[in-house]
Amino acid sequence: MHALLQYLQAEQPRINAVLDRLLADLNPLVRPVAEHVLAAGGKRLRPLLLLLTARSLGRDDDALYPLACSLEYLHSATLLHDDILDGAVLRRGRPAAHTLFGLAPTILAGDVLLALGNRLMADAGDARLAVCISKSIMATATGEVQEIAQVGNINLTLADYLEIITGKTAWLLQAACQCGAIAAGATPVQEAAAARYGLDLGIAFQLVDDALDYDATREKAGKPVGADLLEGKVTMPLLFYLEQAPAAEKEVLAGLMARLRQGDAPEQLAPLFAPFVQRVAACGGAQKTRDAAREYIRTAAAALDAFPAGREKDMLLEAVAYVVARER
Amino acid sequence: MHALLQYLQAEQPRINAVLDRLLADLNPLVRPVAEHVLAAGGKRLRPLLLLLTARSLGRDDDALYPLACSLEYLHSATLLHDDILDGAVLRRGRPAAHTLFGLAPTILAGDVLLALGNRLMADAGDARLAVCISKSIMATATGEVQEIAQVGNINLTLADYLEIITGKTAWLLQAACQCGAIAAGATPVQEAAAARYGLDLGIAFQLVDDALDYDATREKAGKPVGADLLEGKVTMPLLFYLEQAPAAEKEVLAGLMARLRQGDAPEQLAPLFAPFVQRVAACGGAQKTRDAAREYIRTAAAALDAFPAGREKDMLLEAVAYVVARER
Repeated sequence: MHALLQYLQAEQPRINAVLDRLLADLNPLVRPVAEHVLAAGGKRLRPLLLLLTARSLGRDDDALYPLACSLEYLHSATLLHDDILDGAVLRRGRPAAHTLFGLAPTILAGDVLLALGNRLMADAGDARLAVCISKSIMATATGEVQEIAQVGNINLTLADYLEIITGKTAWLLQAACQCGAIAAGATPVQEAAAARYGLDLGIAFQLVDDALDYDATREKAGKPVGADLLEGKVTMPLLFYLEQAPAAEKEVLAGLMARLRQGDAPEQLAPLFAPFVQRVAACGGAQKTRDAAREYIRTAAAALDAFPAGREKDMLLEAVAYVVARER
Repeated sequence: MHALLQYLQAEQPRINAVLDRLLADLNPLVRPVAEHVLAAGGKRLRPLLLLLTARSLGRDDDALYPLACSLEYLHSATLLHDDILDGAVLRRGRPAAHTLFGLAPTILAGDVLLALGNRLMADAGDARLAVCISKSIMATATGEVQEIAQVGNINLTLADYLEIITGKTAWLLQAACQCGAIAAGATPVQEAAAARYGLDLGIAFQLVDDALDYDATREKAGKPVGADLLEGKVTMPLLFYLEQAPAAEKEVLAGLMARLRQGDAPEQLAPLFAPFVQRVAACGGAQKTRDAAREYIRTAAAALDAFPAGREKDMLLEAVAYVVARER
C-alpha cells in the first residue's frame, strides 16, 4: 500500500489545484460554501479512481483533471445536501456548511456544484460521460431517500440494505471508474469491467465504513462508536446481531427506534442504545461485515483481469486492499 | 394569440404524457414528490419553446419530446428547492411539496429531477445539449442565491436586479430555445439567435411577473398585491418608486425591511407596507415595468429574423406578444 499512498500524495496537490481553479469562476455568494466543503478534506478518492482507470487503459494527459474534479464536485454536492437532511452539525470535524452559511445558500451551492460537475463532463464532448454521471446522481439521491425512509426499521432486509449502500455510495465510485474508461476510449468489455470494479469497490468501502462504526478501535480515532445506531440507521453489523437476537431484545430495540422516530433526543437515548452496541460487538457483527466486504473486494479485483498490466493497474489493486484494511 | 393557444392545447397532452411516462421509472419514494410538483400545472412553456424552436429550424420528430420534458424537470427541480428556500407553503394554490413530504425527500427529489433532466439531454448523444443545460442550471441557482442575498436591500441597483432575474428566470428559457436549435442542427447564427430570443423573452417574462405583483388587476385573480414586497424582494416597480421617493419615505421602508430581515412576521408588517404598494401604483411603477418588458420583447422578436418563415416562427412571435399581454 506504500506505493499507492505515494501515488496519492503526488496527485492530491494537482487535483486540489484544479479544484481550486475551477471554483474561481463561481459567484462570490456560492464560492465560499463550495470552498468550505471542499477544504474539509477527504482523500480525493473519486478523482484518483478516474485518473487511475483512464491511465491504466491508455490515456494520460492533463485534460483528465477536470473530469476527475467533476466527481469530487458531485460528491461534495451530495455532502452539502446530506448534512442538511441528516441535521449533521459536523463534517470531518469541522462545522457543516449549513450551520455556517444557512439553509438556502447551502442547498443552492449544492445545486451549483451538481451543475458544475455535469458541465465539466459535458465539456469533454462525449455525451456518454454525461449519461454516466447523470445516472449515478439519480442513483445516489435515490439511495439517500431510501436510507431516510428506512430509518429505525429493524426489519430491514439484507437486500434492502445492499440496495441503499449501492445507491448512496457505490454508484458514484462506479461512475468515476466508468468515466475514466470512457475517456480513455476503452473497449466495451473494459468499460464494463471498470464499472464493475468501481461498484464492488464502493460497496466494500461502505461495508467497511459501517463496520468501523461498531469497531472499538474507532475510538482511537476520537470518533464515537455506534453513531449510526443513534441515527436509527440499520447497517450490516446490526443485521448480523438481529438475525440471532432474542425476541425480547429486539422488542426493546424496536421501542428505542420508535422513540428516535418520534423525535426523542439521541443523546438522551444513548445510554439505552449502548447495550446494543456491545451486543453487536459480542456477536462479531463488525468483523463479519468486514468479511462480507472482502467478497466484494475479490470480485472488484477480478474485474481488473480485463485491464492491461501496468503501474496504474497495480495501484487499482492496491486500492482494494486499502479499502478493507483501513481503520478510519 | 388564438393560434398559439390552440397550438399549446394540442401539445400539452403530449408533453404531459411523456412527462408522466418518464417519471414511471423513478423510485416509489421519489416519484410522488416529483408527480406532485409536476401536477401543480404550469403552462409547459419551456417544453413548448424547445419544440417550437426545433421545428421552426427544420426538425420535427417524437425524439424531441424527451428533450422538451428535460426542461420541465429542471424547472420543477428548481421549484422544489425554491419553495424550501422561500419558506413558501403554497405553489400555484396547492401545498408546496416540502410541507407534504418533508424537507429531505423534497431536496432529494429535486436532485433526482435535476439528474433526470441532465440524463434526457445527455441521452440524445450531443454533448453540446448537456453543456447548455448545465450552464443554465448554474446560472439559475446563482440567480437565486443573489436574490436571497439582496432581500431587503432598497439600494439594489437596476443592474443587480436585471442580473438576478436573468439568472433565476431567463437562463432556463434561453436554454430551452438554444437546445431546440442545437437539436435541429441549426447554424451557429441561428443557434445564437435562438439563445437571444429565449433570454430576452425570459427577462420580459419576469419583468411582467414583477409588474403583475403590483398590478391592481391581479386581485381579480385572487392573488394578493404586493407579495414580493412582503418577502423583502426589491423588483423593478419598486425601483421606479425609489428613484423619486422622498428620503423620509425611503427611511421608513428601510426600517420595515430591516424588521423583515430580523424575522418579524410579514403578516404583522403588512399594514405598514401597504402604503408603499399604493405609492408604487401612484408613480406608475407596474406600467413602467411593462414598458421595459416591451423593449426586451422587441429584441427577442428581432432575433427571430434569423429564422426561416413558417408556422412555428409565427408561434414564437405570438409567444412574445402573449408574455407582455398576460394578466396573471
